Amino acid sequence: MKRIRLKLTLLTAILIAFTASSQQYQPTWESLESRPVPQWYTDAKFGIFIHWGLYSVPAWATNSNADGFGSNYAEWYWERLNNTKLKIHKEFVDFQNRVYGPNFKYPDFAPLFKAELFDPAKWAQIFKNAGAQYVVLTSKHHDGFALWPSRESWNWNAVDAGPHRDLAGDLSKAVKDAGLHMGFYYSLYEWYNPLYKTDIAKYVDQHMLPQLKDLVNRYQPDVIWADGDWDHSDTIWKSRSFIHWLYNESPVKNTVVTNDRWGTGNKHYGTFNSTEYGKGSAGLHKPWEECRGIGESFGFNRNENLEQYQSSQSLVHMLIDIVSRGGNLLLNIGPAADGTIPVIMQQRLKDIGDWLNVNGDAIYGTTAWIAAPKQTDSTIRFTRKGNTLYAIATSWKDALTVKGVRKASRIRLLGVPGTVNFRSAAGGITIQAPQVTPANNPSSYAWVYKIEGAF
Amino acid sequence: MKRIRLKLTLLTAILIAFTASSQQYQPTWESLESRPVPQWYTDAKFGIFIHWGLYSVPAWATNSNADGFGSNYAEWYWERLNNTKLKIHKEFVDFQNRVYGPNFKYPDFAPLFKAELFDPAKWAQIFKNAGAQYVVLTSKHHDGFALWPSRESWNWNAVDAGPHRDLAGDLSKAVKDAGLHMGFYYSLYEWYNPLYKTDIAKYVDQHMLPQLKDLVNRYQPDVIWADGDWDHSDTIWKSRSFIHWLYNESPVKNTVVTNDRWGTGNKHYGTFNSTEYGKGSAGLHKPWEECRGIGESFGFNRNENLEQYQSSQSLVHMLIDIVSRGGNLLLNIGPAADGTIPVIMQQRLKDIGDWLNVNGDAIYGTTAWIAAPKQTDSTIRFTRKGNTLYAIATSWKDALTVKGVRKASRIRLLGVPGTVNFRSAAGGITIQAPQVTPANNPSSYAWVYKIEGAF
Amino acid sequence: MKRIRLKLTLLTAILIAFTASSQQYQPTWESLESRPVPQWYTDAKFGIFIHWGLYSVPAWATNSNADGFGSNYAEWYWERLNNTKLKIHKEFVDFQNRVYGPNFKYPDFAPLFKAELFDPAKWAQIFKNAGAQYVVLTSKHHDGFALWPSRESWNWNAVDAGPHRDLAGDLSKAVKDAGLHMGFYYSLYEWYNPLYKTDIAKYVDQHMLPQLKDLVNRYQPDVIWADGDWDHSDTIWKSRSFIHWLYNESPVKNTVVTNDRWGTGNKHYGTFNSTEYGKGSAGLHKPWEECRGIGESFGFNRNENLEQYQSSQSLVHMLIDIVSRGGNLLLNIGPAADGTIPVIMQQRLKDIGDWLNVNGDAIYGTTAWIAAPKQTDSTIRFTRKGNTLYAIATSWKDALTVKGVRKASRIRLLGVPGTVNFRSAAGGITIQAPQVTPANNPSSYAWVYKIEGAF
Amino acid sequence: MKRIRLKLTLLTAILIAFTASSQQYQPTWESLESRPVPQWYTDAKFGIFIHWGLYSVPAWATNSNADGFGSNYAEWYWERLNNTKLKIHKEFVDFQNRVYGPNFKYPDFAPLFKAELFDPAKWAQIFKNAGAQYVVLTSKHHDGFALWPSRESWNWNAVDAGPHRDLAGDLSKAVKDAGLHMGFYYSLYEWYNPLYKTDIAKYVDQHMLPQLKDLVNRYQPDVIWADGDWDHSDTIWKSRSFIHWLYNESPVKNTVVTNDRWGTGNKHYGTFNSTEYGKGSAGLHKPWEECRGIGESFGFNRNENLEQYQSSQSLVHMLIDIVSRGGNLLLNIGPAADGTIPVIMQQRLKDIGDWLNVNGDAIYGTTAWIAAPKQTDSTIRFTRKGNTLYAIATSWKDALTVKGVRKASRIRLLGVPGTVNFRSAAGGITIQAPQVTPANNPSSYAWVYKIEGAF
Repeated sequence: MKRIRLKLTLLTAILIAFTASSQQYQPTWESLESRPVPQWYTDAKFGIFIHWGLYSVPAWATNSNADGFGSNYAEWYWERLNNTKLKIHKEFVDFQNRVYGPNFKYPDFAPLFKAELFDPAKWAQIFKNAGAQYVVLTSKHHDGFALWPSRESWNWNAVDAGPHRDLAGDLSKAVKDAGLHMGFYYSLYEWYNPLYKTDIAKYVDQHMLPQLKDLVNRYQPDVIWADGDWDHSDTIWKSRSFIHWLYNESPVKNTVVTNDRWGTGNKHYGTFNSTEYGKGSAGLHKPWEECRGIGESFGFNRNENLEQYQSSQSLVHMLIDIVSRGGNLLLNIGPAADGTIPVIMQQRLKDIGDWLNVNGDAIYGTTAWIAAPKQTDSTIRFTRKGNTLYAIATSWKDALTVKGVRKASRIRLLGVPGTVNFRSAAGGITIQAPQVTPANNPSSYAWVYKIEGAF
Repeated sequence: MKRIRLKLTLLTAILIAFTASSQQYQPTWESLESRPVPQWYTDAKFGIFIHWGLYSVPAWATNSNADGFGSNYAEWYWERLNNTKLKIHKEFVDFQNRVYGPNFKYPDFAPLFKAELFDPAKWAQIFKNAGAQYVVLTSKHHDGFALWPSRESWNWNAVDAGPHRDLAGDLSKAVKDAGLHMGFYYSLYEWYNPLYKTDIAKYVDQHMLPQLKDLVNRYQPDVIWADGDWDHSDTIWKSRSFIHWLYNESPVKNTVVTNDRWGTGNKHYGTFNSTEYGKGSAGLHKPWEECRGIGESFGFNRNENLEQYQSSQSLVHMLIDIVSRGGNLLLNIGPAADGTIPVIMQQRLKDIGDWLNVNGDAIYGTTAWIAAPKQTDSTIRFTRKGNTLYAIATSWKDALTVKGVRKASRIRLLGVPGTVNFRSAAGGITIQAPQVTPANNPSSYAWVYKIEGAF
Repeated sequence: MKRIRLKLTLLTAILIAFTASSQQYQPTWESLESRPVPQWYTDAKFGIFIHWGLYSVPAWATNSNADGFGSNYAEWYWERLNNTKLKIHKEFVDFQNRVYGPNFKYPDFAPLFKAELFDPAKWAQIFKNAGAQYVVLTSKHHDGFALWPSRESWNWNAVDAGPHRDLAGDLSKAVKDAGLHMGFYYSLYEWYNPLYKTDIAKYVDQHMLPQLKDLVNRYQPDVIWADGDWDHSDTIWKSRSFIHWLYNESPVKNTVVTNDRWGTGNKHYGTFNSTEYGKGSAGLHKPWEECRGIGESFGFNRNENLEQYQSSQSLVHMLIDIVSRGGNLLLNIGPAADGTIPVIMQQRLKDIGDWLNVNGDAIYGTTAWIAAPKQTDSTIRFTRKGNTLYAIATSWKDALTVKGVRKASRIRLLGVPGTVNFRSAAGGITIQAPQVTPANNPSSYAWVYKIEGAF
Repeated sequence: MKRIRLKLTLLTAILIAFTASSQQYQPTWESLESRPVPQWYTDAKFGIFIHWGLYSVPAWATNSNADGFGSNYAEWYWERLNNTKLKIHKEFVDFQNRVYGPNFKYPDFAPLFKAELFDPAKWAQIFKNAGAQYVVLTSKHHDGFALWPSRESWNWNAVDAGPHRDLAGDLSKAVKDAGLHMGFYYSLYEWYNPLYKTDIAKYVDQHMLPQLKDLVNRYQPDVIWADGDWDHSDTIWKSRSFIHWLYNESPVKNTVVTNDRWGTGNKHYGTFNSTEYGKGSAGLHKPWEECRGIGESFGFNRNENLEQYQSSQSLVHMLIDIVSRGGNLLLNIGPAADGTIPVIMQQRLKDIGDWLNVNGDAIYGTTAWIAAPKQTDSTIRFTRKGNTLYAIATSWKDALTVKGVRKASRIRLLGVPGTVNFRSAAGGITIQAPQVTPANNPSSYAWVYKIEGAF
């Protein structure tokens, strides 16, 4: 049975590859969603999200959440200054006036965005050591400021103004050189672009679509991560038209993935679902990805102290939880305006990388254990790969009972030599933890039992 | 005779007015040029040109003219920094590096353009006291930076960036409130606008024409002063189309004038001819206008000292000379980035105003004395209005001979009570100057003899 | 026995207190050194050093150590720019020119030092939670820029320039309010103070001594931490005279401690010895203190990435090692110019605090185990308090042999309930570690066995 | 008679010269005032005052005089921001907050004072062409910011901060190279120097006197122009002691002059009297000097427009009036922070220079006509030199009557060839003006009749 299944899988892969290169999708969601998901993405599990832009200059948000989720997003700084309906509005205005003076407006931050210490190869190395498989950079956020020399955004991009450097291009090259996949976040809407506000059709035709295609043609990214879609339908955004081009004609038609933020209404289109605010009700019919910050803000917020940062343990647990539910984690960092990655973020990434170094086998290339029965111990998570099941204990247990598994050819604790004992138990098996002291503890935060021959 | 002529003139005026409001011009130069010239413009004679923009921040040019005329134009600062073919290139680069540092680029000047002392009513009063009848402001120079909140130039205009104020609108209102005509200079091309450089058709359609129409609809200017046309033909610029709209449909269709910089090739279109570099070979078949700076640069150049500024005498002589040849003088000032008009420019304008206060009768509403025979004394200039001839002595003469005038009902020296004596002379008359000492000298720089009944 | 000893100790304390308040020390080192060391200091063991000043604006140093220790000290930035003899000189100059431009000099950084997010109560809380007992702030570093409104340093201090705030005073109050001891680092010399360079006697009389006394009188600090003494003898610095005043007359005469950097030559004066570059050959005849950065630089260095930061484990081990040798650790942090403490430093401090929370009994108020015989296991450190010995295992051992201990009334592993077993061994005892798994591990990095009744 | 008088004068001069070089004055005003006035100064008549400093950065003052004279002095900017008792206080604070923001304080202006276009040789040439004989630069104003590398004002001077250039030294050299005398204004007091405010004796000994001597020894100025003396007596300022050194021992003991602002109380000491606010009641027993701005402020005030500037005619008349009363005019200019002299000031200086070029004979080296009887025509001023009398008509007269003159060997109108006629009149002579038209008018503003052999 197994052999046949493998062969079929291989055949399917060949078929898909062949199809992908020749098939012409139609500009309907049905057709576009029929495109097979590039394998690299479903295998990747862990990516790095980067929010970097003009907002990294003030790099400030309130720590209040008086207006709900997002109150403390530093990348929304400009909007906070203008949105008089918010409870937190005055806090932002007071900060701005106090620190920069009343006549200093958001665009005046441009020359202060210098990226003078930006070292893209160093960044790529940090991401790679973290065990990330892909990177998604804000090529342009809602303020419209482009990190690449966008023709449509003259003098409002990082080459003409501020750093005078192609931040997107330089990072893209370094990330690819490190063997990771590169992608771009792109905000469809722009808060204050007068063309957007007065003539949405012109904006889409003359500004947005040319920018998106320019990004794709220039840098050949593997992820297009849309955002800011909520003002208009996918018809107005011409999202189908763009994705149609992307899947059929673009230089990345075989590898690119897209998220599902392409217009109000039906959300189940694009390659994967994005969720942002904690654990979404993400289903399993298509890949999904949760994006989360290390701190509370996506853009760097100097107002955050240690208590606003998640611990390495939380982050590792979050990754495990998401992957066990079939998703990817797109973990956000917010570099500083000078191009440095705050060292606390480097520390968190390193800790995740150290954990993955021992336990990555339970993460990469796995799927959720869909048929898993309800377990007694809620701190255990599962992933599977072929007929191997990974039981991930997010707190140390001297013994674990795994329901729904009747057999195993071998069980090991990743990072510890030898096999571990297990025995049948009611509805499954009970694994006996090996003797682990601080001296031979294989990893922090979580421990993985690899159960071979479980299915 | 006289009465009949006056009646005919009146009739013509009515006819023209009627025609102007009903006629639909065709989008051909022949048709567009057939539009009668608005009388206000040919009567005005003296306007103020204002070069103000981001270049007013560095406000610097070499004093060399190693690359010919324009080497010392401070408004070309950005181009000088980039144009490695110029002899003066290194001087600009050295200045920039020394004063602002190597990583400071032209767009970084935006937040330093503050206009914190800009007082448009004060400006208008200065212009009015100078005797100027109209004002032409650089709404946008070759750098593309707009002085009004142009939708097409988001974050690259004076409301989004820098002063955070509608400089064009505020000045327009003040100038009109003072009873003067307001106009705008507009550069067709933009040195570094990537849309311009890569897709001229899109640039014209999506950027340039919308901007021009926006300017006209917003502020209803009486002058559209095009520039930067030399890269392309009027067909590519769609100049005929724009002027067609301007003359037929715009809110200023009856009052607006345009200059002749609308594309390479044939220069005899638009309402009037512009000349810039000294005395052009301007003909008399249509109005013409000479623009000149008070200093050598149009944009404020901090590198200019007194010797680079023309004296009040030179400027009055220049005005006289131009008007005597049927032209208008558009005298340029370069305000500082803080919104002040350098006081030396205020002084020059006041001196011209003082002269016009006594002698304006010989300037406003006059025409050239077309049939004038060659005169012996080359320092005398002539203007006429009806059957009055004005002989303007640019240096004091105890006696002036005016050839071509056989009779006069009365001759007066403007600013001095009573009439002056004259007698027949070979080919004309000789005027005997009255007794003028420093105590009763009516004006400086030039003296006007008003010869009534000369024709 | 114990009761009697306690009574004697109390008597001694009273005696010392009495003596301290009445005795007049002489201005000789012999007399000054005879002053009893304030008990708070020898008990404290762990303090926070803070390097904060104008150098926190560029916040940059090379990562090279081409010129030996200190090459990578960001607080030496100004000197690096001027010291053409250094191998690293050019790197600093290149950075300065690239980022700030050639005409931007060190004093021009002053307005950029804004401390706009400085929250002294937050700082104090962070230090307290770290388990620190005292804080030493750079009131003035070698650049001479004072963090308090020093009369002698007009317009070159944080109240007149930059933050426009009494950083030293505000922090001093917050630290004391949190129950910690406050102290000040003070550089005797100033690299470029012309008075220092041309007239050392005037400098000492008119500048240095008034500043030192002002600091003491204003803020009543418990530590005066001198530095920059190496150019001159203690006689020229008038160090004896100052300390004489400090110990006899100042408001902190009973509590203050001083270090030993008061002039070239004899180093064994002041209250305690300072060591900076790693493990000095510090003896035991008087208290000593090792100062170390969390990163490699004392002043914040944006050029440092995670690999330049010591791990929490290293820092805890360092603290243990130093305390076991009778010293104090003065652990340095380098806040940013905006007044934030980089979160990685907050993390390190929290980790130390967490460790001390469990194991502080083995640190505070202890002394070195002076008579300890050589041990077999070099990873174990010892401290003692009365007849209790603390054996600190810096790596987990299932069994530890402690030589030189013949008996024990009770042995506990701090953080774990109950007692642990031990048995006699050759030359000492062998302690049997309790059963510890990741689930009940009391602390990270190091484990403390408290051996009561060891002496 | 004449010959004998000349001989006596010569003898006196030799005597004085001899005495000056050998005599030791005593530190009493009586002795110090007995020192002969250096001839260069009484002959000079016209000097240039320069107010340049940190206040040239905001370069702003109200145009109101709500608080009396000086309300509109831009060099008092810092004091205006702090002096809450002034009516104009709020205007300054509002301007500061609006333009620079609430946290930007006066010392923060230092890096913005760049002097990037400062060309001392150009300045000197402008002064020389104006006919000025000496120059007085604000080496230090009340803000204490020194324009030379003063050891006593470290990091609060133009070499350490801002321009990073020895402005005082560079100008001094250029002025001397041009053959003019160089001098320095120096403010005794400093508004906010804490040493001044808390310990006047220390301030005088450690700060003020060393600075004054440093200025003299470094640059050997011919004028020391004290100011800011009004808080203290000359005894507290140790003025006598300083001048004693200046007259007896300094390198400029034979040439230097000083003004009379050396302490409250008796004002009749120093070399000459200073008057500032219009026509003082200056006597004739010693030289006196009136200082006046071209505009209303001494420091450059961007808020001044043409109406705040005196006309060239006013300035020439002012010079004539002052010299006719035996005084010197020290005419002030306020350069911009970039090192340029506003061109309107260049224009005024040139106009004065043009007038002096023709009429300087009536100014330099003259004295007041002390014995002049009351004249009928109040617009005529007189100066004399030996037995020549100069009658200066500040408005053109066809005939002038000069009372008190009975004879004349020759009368000429300066700038016009030939002699003019005169006749005896009641109590004097009547001069018949020559025939002058605009064509041969020798000068603007005022006309000089040189009456030789009048005495």
